[in-house]
Amino acid sequence: MSNPFSTNLDKVAANHMPLTPVGFLPHTAAIFPDRDAVIHGALRYSYQALLDRCEALARALIARGIGAGNTVSIIAPNVPAHLEAHFGVPMTGAVLNSINIRLDAATVGYILDHGECDVLLVDAQFADVASEALGKSERQPLVIDLDDSLGPQGVAIGSMNYEALLAEADPATEIPALTDEWQPMALNYTSGTTGNPKGVVYHHRGAYLNAIGNSFAWGMTPGPTYLWTLPMFHCNGWCFPWTITLQGGTHVCLREVAAEPIIESLAAHQVTHMCGAPIVLSMLASAPDELKAKIPPGLKIMTAGAAPPAAVIAGVESLGAEITHTYGLTEVYGPCVYCAWHEEWNGRPLADRAALKARQGVPYPVLAGLDVIDPETMQPVPTDGETIGEVMFRGNVVMKGYLKNPDATRESLEGGWFHSGDLAVKHPDNYIEIKDRSKDIIISGGENISSIEVEGALYKHESVMAAAVVAKPDDKWGETPCAFIELKQGAEAPSDEDLTSFCREHLAGFKLPKTFVYGELPKTSTGKIQKFLLRERAKAL
Amino acid sequence: MSNPFSTNLDKVAANHMPLTPVGFLPHTAAIFPDRDAVIHGALRYSYQALLDRCEALARALIARGIGAGNTVSIIAPNVPAHLEAHFGVPMTGAVLNSINIRLDAATVGYILDHGECDVLLVDAQFADVASEALGKSERQPLVIDLDDSLGPQGVAIGSMNYEALLAEADPATEIPALTDEWQPMALNYTSGTTGNPKGVVYHHRGAYLNAIGNSFAWGMTPGPTYLWTLPMFHCNGWCFPWTITLQGGTHVCLREVAAEPIIESLAAHQVTHMCGAPIVLSMLASAPDELKAKIPPGLKIMTAGAAPPAAVIAGVESLGAEITHTYGLTEVYGPCVYCAWHEEWNGRPLADRAALKARQGVPYPVLAGLDVIDPETMQPVPTDGETIGEVMFRGNVVMKGYLKNPDATRESLEGGWFHSGDLAVKHPDNYIEIKDRSKDIIISGGENISSIEVEGALYKHESVMAAAVVAKPDDKWGETPCAFIELKQGAEAPSDEDLTSFCREHLAGFKLPKTFVYGELPKTSTGKIQKFLLRERAKAL
Repeated sequence: MSNPFSTNLDKVAANHMPLTPVGFLPHTAAIFPDRDAVIHGALRYSYQALLDRCEALARALIARGIGAGNTVSIIAPNVPAHLEAHFGVPMTGAVLNSINIRLDAATVGYILDHGECDVLLVDAQFADVASEALGKSERQPLVIDLDDSLGPQGVAIGSMNYEALLAEADPATEIPALTDEWQPMALNYTSGTTGNPKGVVYHHRGAYLNAIGNSFAWGMTPGPTYLWTLPMFHCNGWCFPWTITLQGGTHVCLREVAAEPIIESLAAHQVTHMCGAPIVLSMLASAPDELKAKIPPGLKIMTAGAAPPAAVIAGVESLGAEITHTYGLTEVYGPCVYCAWHEEWNGRPLADRAALKARQGVPYPVLAGLDVIDPETMQPVPTDGETIGEVMFRGNVVMKGYLKNPDATRESLEGGWFHSGDLAVKHPDNYIEIKDRSKDIIISGGENISSIEVEGALYKHESVMAAAVVAKPDDKWGETPCAFIELKQGAEAPSDEDLTSFCREHLAGFKLPKTFVYGELPKTSTGKIQKFLLRERAKAL
Repeated sequence: MSNPFSTNLDKVAANHMPLTPVGFLPHTAAIFPDRDAVIHGALRYSYQALLDRCEALARALIARGIGAGNTVSIIAPNVPAHLEAHFGVPMTGAVLNSINIRLDAATVGYILDHGECDVLLVDAQFADVASEALGKSERQPLVIDLDDSLGPQGVAIGSMNYEALLAEADPATEIPALTDEWQPMALNYTSGTTGNPKGVVYHHRGAYLNAIGNSFAWGMTPGPTYLWTLPMFHCNGWCFPWTITLQGGTHVCLREVAAEPIIESLAAHQVTHMCGAPIVLSMLASAPDELKAKIPPGLKIMTAGAAPPAAVIAGVESLGAEITHTYGLTEVYGPCVYCAWHEEWNGRPLADRAALKARQGVPYPVLAGLDVIDPETMQPVPTDGETIGEVMFRGNVVMKGYLKNPDATRESLEGGWFHSGDLAVKHPDNYIEIKDRSKDIIISGGENISSIEVEGALYKHESVMAAAVVAKPDDKWGETPCAFIELKQGAEAPSDEDLTSFCREHLAGFKLPKTFVYGELPKTSTGKIQKFLLRERAKAL
């Protein structure tokens, strides 16, 4: 049915343009050309210089035949070239593949093959692993050495270095305009504790929107100074290369994530914002007092990856910092759920505030849908804070899919929702709270037991430093909870009876661990406890 | 050419969703259901209530057959129903047509016909003009009376009142999901000083993006309290119904824009943000001291429509308020250009700061392109602060086009840019500064003379209250500048010789007015000087 609104009101060049976060850079460079864009040790350069360098990267790559359909991979810590790749690579139309620097050579080699790497940028610190990975790979990418003045010197595995590549750029080389916001722009591999990692594909529209979403969730105002504690290989630094550039902020780079370099950088540049997993918060909270005294007042910290424990929240907030808890996965461009804070919660006691803040919360405004759903019936669970379902996402900040994996793509996006594999409840105020990963849930006598809930009870014991609870196969119950406990320094292990009765104060009987094991817990290099190893140990007990 | 990134990574329900600002309401209502959404005199209701009421409006309209392809018009001041229409109407798929309350009945009748009005919501204050307009119109819309408790009572021209319409809503009526972000959602008529007004059509994508753009340009943080001084009929209140809802803010409604009710509302609700033309700023600056003392500290004011004069900026900032100067037109969703402020400008003397702030500035991040272009060659002017060109816009916050006016649409969007008709220069720092409307420029002996520049010189004279300069036809020069001047109370008119030599200190010789006329200047009800009337007078001199 034709009506006057559906005729002669078409999309034309003047009124329709693909959304892309790459455009934030020329936008900010035009307004604040002289403002510091990047600080890295003694190096400091402006937004005009950053734009010039990113365009040089794009032009040099284009001249070497890189464009739509190509993949440019990078293995590097949070150095300026890594930030530049977030603009220069998608400017060409190619896909940026930022590789986890903690992976072994075999996995990196797999990623180079699977992602069809055409160009590989390598920081000298990772020259060895990259060399070995290239040896195992069938790809023969152009390898470029990133000569970071603050990194190891005199290591070169590539055919040229990064500055030489940039110097090749001919200003006459045209940078193509993006024609489709659905075009892929990034490829990020999930960590995949078992099996090969999956390649998550992002598009320009989603990255544009989640960069904006970060800004809203954090209540960010123009001109932040942002410290790069969060790895850029992690969901493209949770989209912050684009968010900070959108806000005309200063990117403070950092090679090493440890208390002293973090705090010295915070102080030297009067940093206003930083991100990190709870382990990074713990680093700050447990730093020596004379270091902690240097933390600039009003520092805003976004955390995700796990709910921050109450003691950590208290510790960090006592430093005058403010924590925003967010939640997401690689498949949803990093965080796109946040624990939106209510003013009236400020008056509550710390334990209450910590419990409220530990909840994952509500969707970013750019996320169309977030719900906790029974994956069998696809019906939302009641908002009772008790019924467990699977966290599901829908909207423009959900990935295109998994590269060369149509089955996994279809399964994960089935029924109009992205199935996260995380198990949660929905509270009466619509805030979601993660209870477990699907694979971490313990099913004992037909009852679901949240390993996180049992761990929470154990963490309350004064001797417990860290706790991880996994399923132990059991002939009678199917599974029972098995607790692995790392004690505080100097603390003695309580007896099983004592610890059981301690837990009984906090847990229903069927949730009580049947087995306690003491010792250091196996952790990934990001500080995540490796539950799959503990499950194997529990099985062998 | 097929590659792995272009296969099996398709748009599906989980990962692709039309952008619409209507979604900000359920989003905020889910997070802050109990927060005050609307304050209107003694009336106050929450986000949950606002959502319920907007959905009721949508359902009642849908049940009456309203949906995509229909038009719902409204003539009302800034009352709660006007805000609700900004969500409830587009929820149905229909277009919201908010009509300027200052128009005469003939023009309103024209708009009802041209916009193909199906439903008309009328505030009692405008019952007479609406009645008369309906009499002149060929449309027979469903007419709904808005019974505002703070408006005139006992006037009814419709078939039912608004609350009765809402009461009709059946919760079972399904509100359709938007399937296309390019779908029209609003129809706003330009003021058109001559001839019939043109109907500018907005789509959901553009309104979503400009609502976000407002937030960035203003550095807005969550939870503002916003006073509705800016008419909602003006470019949908510059998209602020959606911006404030996105930010979970409180909408403080206001029927009358005058110093006392504004300041009393600011004080009563500790308002944080308001918008208005410079005339509204002048109202505040020239209010009695005891009233001014009530203005809450840190009030943020966005102004557009004309560059705020230095004295007004000084007056308002001395009240502790902060002014953000923006610029736009109906065709670009209201403001989408802003004078982004540089910290280092704060140290400059007031005159410098006022001159910097009077510039229109730089694009919102959601506007893809803004430039000053020679309309003949379509080449950008140099950034010399001197060469005049036409301001042009491109991107997603440019209108779909003019309704039922393909010629005007094509002309205005020709060459990949929206041609604004405003003439400006581009400064070396990329900030644009409007010099005139195309039709206001004076061409004398082949030289362009900016009427704004000549007016600026006249405004510096101590006796001048207001000045408007237009072209007077001249046999020798083609045109010469003719100055119409309104004197300050009690001031005497200077001699033409004295005023000419005063102007010579500020203007090049060829720009000097050749004619001076004293008397009150004709103004629109929004305070804009009606230059077309002055041009007629100048011609008749």
